[in-house]
Formats: sequence, C-alpha cells, structure tokens
Amino acid sequence: MSQLYPSYLRKLQPHELQSVCDEVRQYIIDQVSEHPGHLGASLGVVELTVALHYVFNTPYDKIIWDVGHQAYAHKILTGRKEKFPSHRTYGGISGFPVMAESEYDSFGGGHASTSISAALGMAVASSLKGEKDRKHIAIIGDGSMTGGLAFEGLNNAGAAGTDILVVLNDNGISIDESTGALNQYLTKICVSNRYNYFKNRVWDITGGKKSEDTAIRNFLSKVSRTTKSFFFRQGKLFEALNFRYFGPIDGHDTETLVSVLRSLSEIKGPKLLHIITTKGKGLSSAEANPVIYHAPGKFDPETGERITTVAGTPRYQDVFGQTIIELAKNDERIVGITPAMPTSCSLNMMMKVMPERVFDVGIAEEHAVTFSAGLAAQGLVPFCNIYSSFLQRSFDQIIHDVAIQKLPVVFCIDRAGIVGEDGATHHGAFDLAYMRMIPDIVISSPMNERELRNLMFTAASYGKGPFAIRYPRSRGVMTDWRTPLEIQPVGKGIKVCGSDNATTAIVSIGHIGNMALNGVGNDPRVALYNMIYLKPIDEKLLGEIFSRHKRIITLEDGTLKGGLFSAVSEFAFLNSYKGEIIPLGIPDKFISHGTVEQLYSECGLTVENILNLLR
Amino acid sequence: MSQLYPSYLRKLQPHELQSVCDEVRQYIIDQVSEHPGHLGASLGVVELTVALHYVFNTPYDKIIWDVGHQAYAHKILTGRKEKFPSHRTYGGISGFPVMAESEYDSFGGGHASTSISAALGMAVASSLKGEKDRKHIAIIGDGSMTGGLAFEGLNNAGAAGTDILVVLNDNGISIDESTGALNQYLTKICVSNRYNYFKNRVWDITGGKKSEDTAIRNFLSKVSRTTKSFFFRQGKLFEALNFRYFGPIDGHDTETLVSVLRSLSEIKGPKLLHIITTKGKGLSSAEANPVIYHAPGKFDPETGERITTVAGTPRYQDVFGQTIIELAKNDERIVGITPAMPTSCSLNMMMKVMPERVFDVGIAEEHAVTFSAGLAAQGLVPFCNIYSSFLQRSFDQIIHDVAIQKLPVVFCIDRAGIVGEDGATHHGAFDLAYMRMIPDIVISSPMNERELRNLMFTAASYGKGPFAIRYPRSRGVMTDWRTPLEIQPVGKGIKVCGSDNATTAIVSIGHIGNMALNGVGNDPRVALYNMIYLKPIDEKLLGEIFSRHKRIITLEDGTLKGGLFSAVSEFAFLNSYKGEIIPLGIPDKFISHGTVEQLYSECGLTVENILNLLR
Repeated sequence: MSQLYPSYLRKLQPHELQSVCDEVRQYIIDQVSEHPGHLGASLGVVELTVALHYVFNTPYDKIIWDVGHQAYAHKILTGRKEKFPSHRTYGGISGFPVMAESEYDSFGGGHASTSISAALGMAVASSLKGEKDRKHIAIIGDGSMTGGLAFEGLNNAGAAGTDILVVLNDNGISIDESTGALNQYLTKICVSNRYNYFKNRVWDITGGKKSEDTAIRNFLSKVSRTTKSFFFRQGKLFEALNFRYFGPIDGHDTETLVSVLRSLSEIKGPKLLHIITTKGKGLSSAEANPVIYHAPGKFDPETGERITTVAGTPRYQDVFGQTIIELAKNDERIVGITPAMPTSCSLNMMMKVMPERVFDVGIAEEHAVTFSAGLAAQGLVPFCNIYSSFLQRSFDQIIHDVAIQKLPVVFCIDRAGIVGEDGATHHGAFDLAYMRMIPDIVISSPMNERELRNLMFTAASYGKGPFAIRYPRSRGVMTDWRTPLEIQPVGKGIKVCGSDNATTAIVSIGHIGNMALNGVGNDPRVALYNMIYLKPIDEKLLGEIFSRHKRIITLEDGTLKGGLFSAVSEFAFLNSYKGEIIPLGIPDKFISHGTVEQLYSECGLTVENILNLLR
Repeated sequence: MSQLYPSYLRKLQPHELQSVCDEVRQYIIDQVSEHPGHLGASLGVVELTVALHYVFNTPYDKIIWDVGHQAYAHKILTGRKEKFPSHRTYGGISGFPVMAESEYDSFGGGHASTSISAALGMAVASSLKGEKDRKHIAIIGDGSMTGGLAFEGLNNAGAAGTDILVVLNDNGISIDESTGALNQYLTKICVSNRYNYFKNRVWDITGGKKSEDTAIRNFLSKVSRTTKSFFFRQGKLFEALNFRYFGPIDGHDTETLVSVLRSLSEIKGPKLLHIITTKGKGLSSAEANPVIYHAPGKFDPETGERITTVAGTPRYQDVFGQTIIELAKNDERIVGITPAMPTSCSLNMMMKVMPERVFDVGIAEEHAVTFSAGLAAQGLVPFCNIYSSFLQRSFDQIIHDVAIQKLPVVFCIDRAGIVGEDGATHHGAFDLAYMRMIPDIVISSPMNERELRNLMFTAASYGKGPFAIRYPRSRGVMTDWRTPLEIQPVGKGIKVCGSDNATTAIVSIGHIGNMALNGVGNDPRVALYNMIYLKPIDEKLLGEIFSRHKRIITLEDGTLKGGLFSAVSEFAFLNSYKGEIIPLGIPDKFISHGTVEQLYSECGLTVENILNLLR
C-alpha cells in the first residue's frame, strides 16, 4: 500500500493488525538501513503505535510522543509513508514529530521528558473548551521518565485529576542503559511478575463512581480472558502521585494492547499504563545491541551488519574520551559526569578503566550540573559532559549552583554548532551566547585536537570557577593527535596565518576556523585569528586587530545574537573602532535538518561566501 | 550570649536545648521585625537547626539548606549572631547561605530544589576521598520537593546507595500553599497518622547488615520511649526510589529530633526523615497567616502587627493582576499560570474571580512552561507569570516547547532587573540577554503602567508565537493607571522627549527609562528614546537615532552581555554607525544584596553618572 492512514487501520479486525505491524516494521528496517536514523526506539513501539491509532480517534484525540525519535511508525501510519525515505534529509520530513508537518503530530519533540506536561496542558485546554470526549495520551520511555520535568508533570497531573493517559514504554534503555532508582524499581516490578503475565491493580476501586466501576469491571473481565490477572501493589510510586497504575503488559501483543487501551479510554482521571517492549524489536542485531542500534547508521537490512566507513582523523569525542583518562590518571580529583550519554560522549572509555570515577546520572541535565557543583564543593574536579542543546536545561544550575559559588566545574559541551540530521531541536546554536552572559565563567572552543587536549589540561588545574570547552560532533583535523599536554593560556587568542597588512581579519572561534584556514588561509587579503577563548576574550589581541585591519569578519558556529559577533561589536564600540565588522554565524532563525554542509550553506558559513565578502 | 557556636550547644544536655531554641526564636522575631526578611520559614526550623548542629559535627559534617531562606537560626548559631542585624543590607551578611560567608555554609542557596543533588555530590566526593565518617544532610521543604531537580536528585541518590540524609521539612506551604499530588500524598500520610504519633517503617529490615540491624533496633527502642511507634507503608513513594523512609515526627520536639537524628546517623545508605513543622512557629500572626508572614516586612515583635506604608502609585504586580482579569473577561482563551507564586505575582486576584482559569503548578518552572505550551497548542492564550531569575530554569522549554513550535505563550517576567535585598541569586539580570537569542520571540518591557496594560492587550491577540513582557518588582509612575487598552505596535519604539539636534540619545528599555526621564528629561543635550521592544527592535527608529545623534547611551536594567547594548552595537556595525555608544546596565559580575538604590549606584545606573557622561 503506497500510503497509510489510521482510517485504514480502523477497518480491520484486531487480529488483522499484526500483519500491518509486520509490514510497517519491515518498511522501517528497509528504509533506515539505507537512510540512517533512530532505529531501535521506533522498532520497539510498532505494535503500540498501531494499537493507539486503532483505538483512539486521531487526529482529534491527541498522541504526544516523548523525545519523538520513536515516531517512525506513527509517521508511516499517518500519511507520510511515501515521504519517509526523505526523513532527516534537507527539505525532507523531520526525524521527530513536528506540529507544522502533520495534524497527527500534536506536539513537537526532540528533547526528553516533555510529553506529560504538554499532554496535561492540552487536556486541560480541551476540558475548558468543553471538548470532554477528546483523549490525550503521552507516550514516554523509562529513560525519559527520570527527567525532572516528567516528575513535575506527573505531580501536577495527579493533583489536577484531569483525564490523561500516560503510557510508560519500558525497555530498560534510554540511549545507553537506563540508570537510577526509578529504573531499578521498574525492573523489580517486571522481574517479580515475569513478562507474560498481565497484572493490574485498580486504585481506589471502592471510591470510584458507578459508571467508572463498570468501566473498571469491563477492563478486568477483558483482561482476564487473555491473561492471568490479579491485584498487586507495585505501582506504588505512581499511585502516591494519584495516578492509577496498570501493568506491566507485553507491548508487542497488539490484541492485548487494543483491548487494554479500549478499556482505559473509558476510565476517568490520570492513568498510567506500563508496557514492556524490546528496543530494536524484529532485527536481531538491534535487539542484541540496543545501544549501538539506537542510531546505527547504514546497515544490511537482512543481517543487520553495519556498513562503516574507514576513519581518517579522530572524532573530537574520541579525543575527549582518551584525554580525560590521561588526565585522571595523574590527578585523582578528576571525575566524569554524563546525563545518560556515556557512549555518545565517549566517557564509556573512562568507565571501563576507572568505573568508580564516572557517573551516569540518567536523563537529568539539571541534576548533572548541581551534582557536579557538589562534587566540586568538596574539592574534586568534575568534567561534566553534556550536549549543547541539552545543557540549555541546566542554564540556571550553571548560574546558581556553579558560577555564583565560583566552583571549578569543567563543562565539556559536546554537539556544539550545527549537528545536521537531527535538526532544529538538536543544533548547539546557543551555548556561546547563553554562557557569555554568565559572570566568572571561562568559555573556550578548540580549533583542533591539540587545543582540545590543552584546554582540558588547562581546565583541570584552573580552579577559580567554571570552565567551558565546546566542540562539535565531527572529526578533527590531526591524524597524529596525541600531542604533549600544555597549558593554553586563559584569555589568549592567536594569529593563525596572514599578514598584518591584510585588509581583512577573520576572527574565529572553534573548529569552524578550519573552514577559513582551508579556504582562504593563503589569500593575501586575509589574516586569520583564532580567539580560542570567548571569555575572557583577548582584548589585547582584539586591539591589535582593530589597529591593523580595516575590516573584520567574525566567524562562529553559533547564533549571531549574543556570541562572538556581539562580543567583538561591544568591544569595538568601547574602543572606538571605526572599521567594518561583518558577522558570519548562525542567523536568528531555527535551522532545520540536513547534512552539516547543507545547513552551513544555508547559514552562509561557506568559503564561497567569505570570498564574496573579500571582493 | 553575644555570639553562638555549635560547640556551645554540644556542652548542653538534650533537655537544655529548648531554652536555646526559645532564645534564638525570640532573637529572630525581634531582629526581623525591624530588619525585614524571610520570617516564617526560619521560625519553623529553629528546633531542627539546633538539633542538627547538636548531633552532627559541623562544619566537618555538611548541612545543605534547600532554598536557604530558612537558615536564620543556622546563621545565628554559627558565629553570625552579632552580624545578623545586618542581614540583607548592603555590605551585611546575606539572607541566604553563602559558601564564602562561613565554613558552616556548605553550599549556597536561593533557588529551590537543589539540596539533594548538591548533598549527593558532596557525599560521593567524601566517599571517593576516603572520608567515610563525614555526614551529609539535605534539608528540603515540601514545596521544593515538587521541583524536578529534587526528583532527579532522589532518583540518582537512591540508585547510588551513598550515605545521605534528606530531611523533608513538611509545613504544607511553599510561599503560597503547596500544590500538587506529592503534597496531597504527604498530607494524607500526616492526616491518617495524626500529628503526635511517631511512626516509621524500616525498609527492608531483613536485608540489612548486622551492624545496621543494631542501629535500627536502637532507633526503634529510642523512638518507642517517647512515641507510639509502628510500621506503616506510607513512605512508599520514597521507598520506590530506594530511600528508607522515617516519620512523620514532630519537628518542634527538640529531644525527639536529637534522638532520631542520632539513630539515623548510624544507618547507612539513602534515608529520608519526614518532619512536620509549623511555618511561622512562635509568632501567632505568622502561624495564622503563613503566606503573608513568609516575608512580612516590618512588624511589631509583640503583636505581630505589620507596619505598612501608605501606597502611592501601584505596583506593576497589581496592574498585572487587575489587567489580566479585565482581558480574561473579554477573551475566554486567556488563562493564568504560576509556579507557586500566585500571591507574589498577583494572579491570586484572578484566582478569586475565575478560579478554573488559573493554574498554580507548584515549584516547577520547567513544567509551567511546557504545560503552557500544551495549553497554547489547543488554542488557549496562556499568560505564564514567572520571576526572571526562576525563568532561567525554563530556558530550554521556552526554546524547545514554545518558540520552535511558534506557540503563542505570553511570558510575564516579574522581578526583572535588580531586586534588592534578596541579592545575587534573585536579581533578574539575564532575561533580556537569554531571551534575545531565541528566534521568533517578541521581547518587550513597559516604562509605565499604561504600557504594561497595552503590552498585555497586544500579547493576547498576537498569536504568532511567544511574547515576553518583563517588568520589575517596583511601583510604577501613574496614580491614574486604568487607561483604555490599546495595541502597542509590535517592534515600535518611541521618542519620549528631547530635540533631534541633541548631541546625545539615551536609548532605553523598560521602567529604568524613568530614571533618565526624571533626571535629564529637560536637559537640552539629551533626547530620550523608549524602545519598548527589544525584539524585534525598531530598526527604523534606530536608524533615525544614528542619523541624528553623535552619541548614544544605552540604558537597561539587565546584563551588558547580550541585551540592549549588544543589540544596538550589532545593528550599528551592520549599518556603519560611526558615533559613540556608551552602555549603562548591569556589569558582568554578580551583584550582591542591598537596597535597589544602593545596587543601582554600584552598577552606575544613576542620574549622576548620566550627567557625567554628558560633560
């Protein structure tokens, strides 16, 4: 079938749905093997997705996907099957739900733990508008459930009493393995009850209204037909928050899902259905290696074998991962912290060598920073590694718990700048700007592997307050990168190449400087400066640049509102510079998805554009 | 006794401690009656504070106060009794714990929900350093416990298994009454057990080690001497997160507190002690009106009667509170959202008139924003009112859940700019800068009551995306403020006064413009412009200003790194302005506490300074 809609599903009998699931799953495997994306999460919720669209009256009823990287089946089933091969490509559909893309995408996603709050807001709005029959369903993974925002949502929803269904998709995996007490608790529920039993505890059954009692009785009678059911007390955490807890049930049994969801749709108030799924379901390699197959790149759709390309220069992530071990071996104060990203950020390397000194705190960016502040308050030197766009979550903690107290937390900001296919929610566009306004923080960005190593070495011994090092998701430029560790003087930039008599100075920060170096490094009209530090910025060097060059091009892989361009402009007015300043960076709009090269081009961050400016 | 230290306490017998409590409590009442501050919270934890410093070996052992506005007894008992009259005054001690102020202040405070994460970090650090005997105690209120960061901390601490004690100080109040399912749950525990019984449930007693069993037996035997004790299952929420739950006990019974804390200090792993306290304990007016006596201003120490000053112009808060009712009466899409601040932000007015359209979501700023996004996604127009420094917590939600999706959430940013006595953690210094980098957001700030009303009116019908209105904690300038509602054209600034031939243009945004108007409004050397909107900024008007005036002074009640000064400088370079630009605003450092006037003066935000610049 070339295009699929929920209306098609609803013409089928429940026992006919599994064949649709099989078809959709195979389509996902075939497509993602060739057009890489988030594989594992989407394969795990095929049956759930089919059941949801079968039971609920979408798009009138609202399905809100947490994070959203599990929404491939949802997209394929809501009129986007034909467009699916274009997902995550420039001009194609997004890898995440996007409100503007489809009326079936009730709320956009990308970051974790937002779905309960959003669903509650929508449910309250529907209730105020008198649309009492509209249903609101949030689907959230056990990894996302550890984020504080999810708890805030549960806490508010439980008190509000509004009609809302939270489906807890429990696969024991966020991107790496889930951690935290909540996960241990969920595992305990599952282990003590075994998988294939369906168990439920109907909360406060005696207190319910007549009509609800009927719904609950129907629910129990349906359930007992297919499963061994009895009450149990293990949803206590959610019940303490006024949610009725149901489960756990097998999330790959479509008919049971349909039956249970139908019953739950008749029960009022806040409800949580706990389902157990297997990440990567249906592709054996993905089931066996859920961390790798979260987003495996290209692979063989038959065998699952990954098609890897031969490496050249190392990734900045690898340099970080190796260097922190080197530093930690010589300085026992150094520890590593990651919110659920040990593999992606390469702290897994240090975990293997010194596991007691690396802390994966789960999806909990705020806590990661305040926890790091606590570590630093007792004399340790925490290297807290968080993606740029996720560190937005910790903005207040950086200010309130770290910077005000001058605690020496080292922030290693990964995925800075344009990240490519993940799109608007994931680009690290803002970190230079949101860090620069914070007093008493050092902000740096390396142009190559040696500078990354030296900045990490410098940060470890800095000791006077927070120290940020931001670098992109990309390969560096040095094949021979194991350079000796040296102090990178704080607040000092360098001239990379070019004559003092050149008309134009390119003032750059970070890896993006290589684009200018490779493109116009030999151009006599240009001198290239690498600031290395955005804060404190090298005012002496800027003064020299002002005196030498009539035109300055600022070059940064971040927003033009508040970053390097702003810093240089401000300093220029404070120092009466009368030349020209031309900004190159990420313009003041949300940048969509595509390859990094395509998106740089959209931003005007190209050699061609620099050459045009030199004319 | 002129100065007090924990060493003095430790020489006393437990039954002698209550007299110290009484003395400290009376000292707080006497002092705060004359030197206003946070009264209620501190009065509620006098006994707890004495017991903690008596039992634990502070400052070696670490006490971490959540929020910190309850730490007056702590300050008085740790060598700061003589300095206490200076608290919250310029050059005096802070109203919150500050690491640099005392070795007894293990971690600074101000914002809610940080203590568990910080205590865990410190406990893990102590453990890594081999300081196995060091104890770490977080004291957190039931209000702060609803913040997501607290949950993230509990979740991580429960899994880590590190030795840590969380004291849950349950008084049913955050600043307004606590809300949320967690609070209902805590109330249920207390109601079902009545106050004066001491009950506990020892989690997993059979699984404990021998030595721990002894500690637990000691604990039970001590407890049963003074209270009727038995096991109960009501700590289930905390137990689900691997915390051993104890309580609830009477937080004003010093001897029991001492006994219980001693026993708990011998029990390993993560523990939570639930104590019940009365906010404002010991001052009858404060006990009866905990919301008003959270920070009552000056009052009579005998009767508790508040000494109020006669009002002149209204507070911006009152104008907000009245105007949103006016708007909501004519537009049923409008709803109000506050994270635990209905009284302080004046949404309590609307709560009285249309309770079903105001949502107090508890201390949960992230959720407040994403919940608002959900409301907006379903066609409502949420006015989400959050203090500037607390909205830092929602930075990612503004970007990810609101701006990317172009949802029409109206952000009413209260306490913008310098707030005075609460100091560094509470100043709204960053909002103009952290909002300006966000694409597709409107940022505005009124110079007077009429503009605030018109901006609210304009925001309600804007509909294209987020709309921020920031205003200070202060009185306005109009006695007759109920002006007709008019559209304030988006992105349009105005000239307030002065000649086009004046040498200097003052380009201002927000209430701070009145300082210039009153100080130099009649000075022929000056023309005063009120931008009203920071984004989109009025480029046409800026162009005219550039063409008319040789010198521009930018004037803003916010950081100079990224706000109005940056916006004007960037635009100036993009438009080849060759004049002078001089910034007046909050410099790049953390501003301490004092009166607003003193702190403005420290920042150079004075008429005198403007006059100096004109010379």
